[in-house]
Amino acid sequence: MRIILCGFGVVGQSLVKLFDSRSEDLYAKYGLKPRIVGVFDSKGSAVDSSGLDLEKLVETKKKHGSVRNYSNSKNKMSGIDMIKNLEADVLIETTASNYKDAEPGMTHITMAMKKGMHVISVNKGPLALAFPSLLELATYNQVLLKFSGTVGGGTPILDYAKDSLRGERITSFAGILNGTTNYILTNMANGLTFESALKDAKDKGYVEADEALDLDGLDAAAKLVILANWIMGMKVTMPDIKCTGIRKVTTEDIKKAAKKKCAIKLIASCNKELEVGPKEVSIDDPLCVNGTLNAIAFTSEHSGTQTIIGKGAGGMETASSILRDLLDIRQETAKN
Amino acid sequence: MRIILCGFGVVGQSLVKLFDSRSEDLYAKYGLKPRIVGVFDSKGSAVDSSGLDLEKLVETKKKHGSVRNYSNSKNKMSGIDMIKNLEADVLIETTASNYKDAEPGMTHITMAMKKGMHVISVNKGPLALAFPSLLELATYNQVLLKFSGTVGGGTPILDYAKDSLRGERITSFAGILNGTTNYILTNMANGLTFESALKDAKDKGYVEADEALDLDGLDAAAKLVILANWIMGMKVTMPDIKCTGIRKVTTEDIKKAAKKKCAIKLIASCNKELEVGPKEVSIDDPLCVNGTLNAIAFTSEHSGTQTIIGKGAGGMETASSILRDLLDIRQETAKN
Repeated sequence: MRIILCGFGVVGQSLVKLFDSRSEDLYAKYGLKPRIVGVFDSKGSAVDSSGLDLEKLVETKKKHGSVRNYSNSKNKMSGIDMIKNLEADVLIETTASNYKDAEPGMTHITMAMKKGMHVISVNKGPLALAFPSLLELATYNQVLLKFSGTVGGGTPILDYAKDSLRGERITSFAGILNGTTNYILTNMANGLTFESALKDAKDKGYVEADEALDLDGLDAAAKLVILANWIMGMKVTMPDIKCTGIRKVTTEDIKKAAKKKCAIKLIASCNKELEVGPKEVSIDDPLCVNGTLNAIAFTSEHSGTQTIIGKGAGGMETASSILRDLLDIRQETAKN
Repeated sequence: MRIILCGFGVVGQSLVKLFDSRSEDLYAKYGLKPRIVGVFDSKGSAVDSSGLDLEKLVETKKKHGSVRNYSNSKNKMSGIDMIKNLEADVLIETTASNYKDAEPGMTHITMAMKKGMHVISVNKGPLALAFPSLLELATYNQVLLKFSGTVGGGTPILDYAKDSLRGERITSFAGILNGTTNYILTNMANGLTFESALKDAKDKGYVEADEALDLDGLDAAAKLVILANWIMGMKVTMPDIKCTGIRKVTTEDIKKAAKKKCAIKLIASCNKELEVGPKEVSIDDPLCVNGTLNAIAFTSEHSGTQTIIGKGAGGMETASSILRDLLDIRQETAKN
């Protein structure tokens, strides 16, 4: 299976390491032989249509900060040129999410689908801004569009709701979908001010380069868009979400909640409305998790409320979700 | 799809109500038309090869305490005779679990499989005592054996671990798999003695007719057997579980744990050993749920620990798991 990998940050590198460490097992168990034929980052690219050397890729990135030094030719083929000219079966999009115009991910994904490639995106931007039309484009071009890693990192939240609960009707859901704000709110509950909790989160590398994505609830809202489309069959995008971040949550609010045995959490919910905002949650509620954990509670017609809790992010976790998508593509295309 | 239903207690009746209320939707969405051709309880049976009237079945049971008064003939055909002589596609086994010889469920299941019927069991007994050989028997007779409802009630724990985590390797797991003992331990933590907590649980109808199944950990051990076989590929049965119940947990133990910010929970775990026993769990651990809730934490190689929490039992919840199994059977047999 020939793969073009867009972006070579933490997730891309984890994926390559995962492929490398599990190559034998993946082939023996699932008949999957992933072959990365092209990869590009912001500074350049590496191409080998017979498959790039995975170990060398990681080493090159580590040493030079880019994959472009992979071969002596110092390949400067742009991402767009690569998608246009290189034959591949699957495009994996791992560049950074952006909720203004979703670029460059949007162009990578639409170009690839039009060329007949299946797409796995862990980039939330394109899905948040254009979920309904991207799904249509995939159907029109008879390719698969997968995005397990966009919600919950390695925790298969989307799969759970879609597959494990088949036959059930989910009537509503609510979740803590952003680990960074949960970490900040947890530390505020432990006595830190907003400013020092934010600083600590930054020091630990939990905060996005553009902190508004976390603090203003945009990351959680993007995940809510994806869940609402995929699980509830809605056709919505970012502007449909009523979104408030955590910047105005005060230590007093948190103390007041604590007196009622509640904690303040940034909750993304789909009930009658689609909303992201700080809410009081009872500390006895399974949803009320601390630190960087994510949690989501699905309420279904016949089997009550079910909560899933897991790490929401992390390179290897997200890489494992990409692998899951790849196995699905392998299985679904093997049928034809 | 012709169905024989063994047992007509809370689960059986909930299932019939579920079929009745969703018949149109099930046909439109999944092409599923469940037709119950025979049902029996401990006092008698009802048969109609063109399909029993679902509403009348429930009413008869309510009025007479048995389905045998469904028609004037007061059908006394035994369960065994029904399985032997009635044509059906699926047998649904809902009689009570028993961990001595697993009867009468064991006979129902093996007879049905030998006759070429697919089987859905929410009865844990046969699986706990003979999982490996029942699976072999199913393979040999080319039928499907499904048992989603045996662990977690309506919460699709088995599916989650098997399907949603495909491609991942689960390295260990631990769970609170019995709601009754969790309810008792929660109330003990709130100040009740074991005796009064047990009495309260009995008054609420949470305790099995044979209280040892809950209190001595047998129910949790049976679920552990099923998980170990299905998720971890082990070939084990009840005698392989090191099992301790909650009868010896004292108020002092619970107080001692509370000082360490822990609670005592009956934990079923699969790590190096298969074990059921009371353990101290940090109250900050997502696994530490209260009341009758069930929870299970799967630790996987790449995506960390993931916890699922839900109601572990209940008629409608378990019925919804049977429906899920039925949809699977419908889908898998449609392929052939």
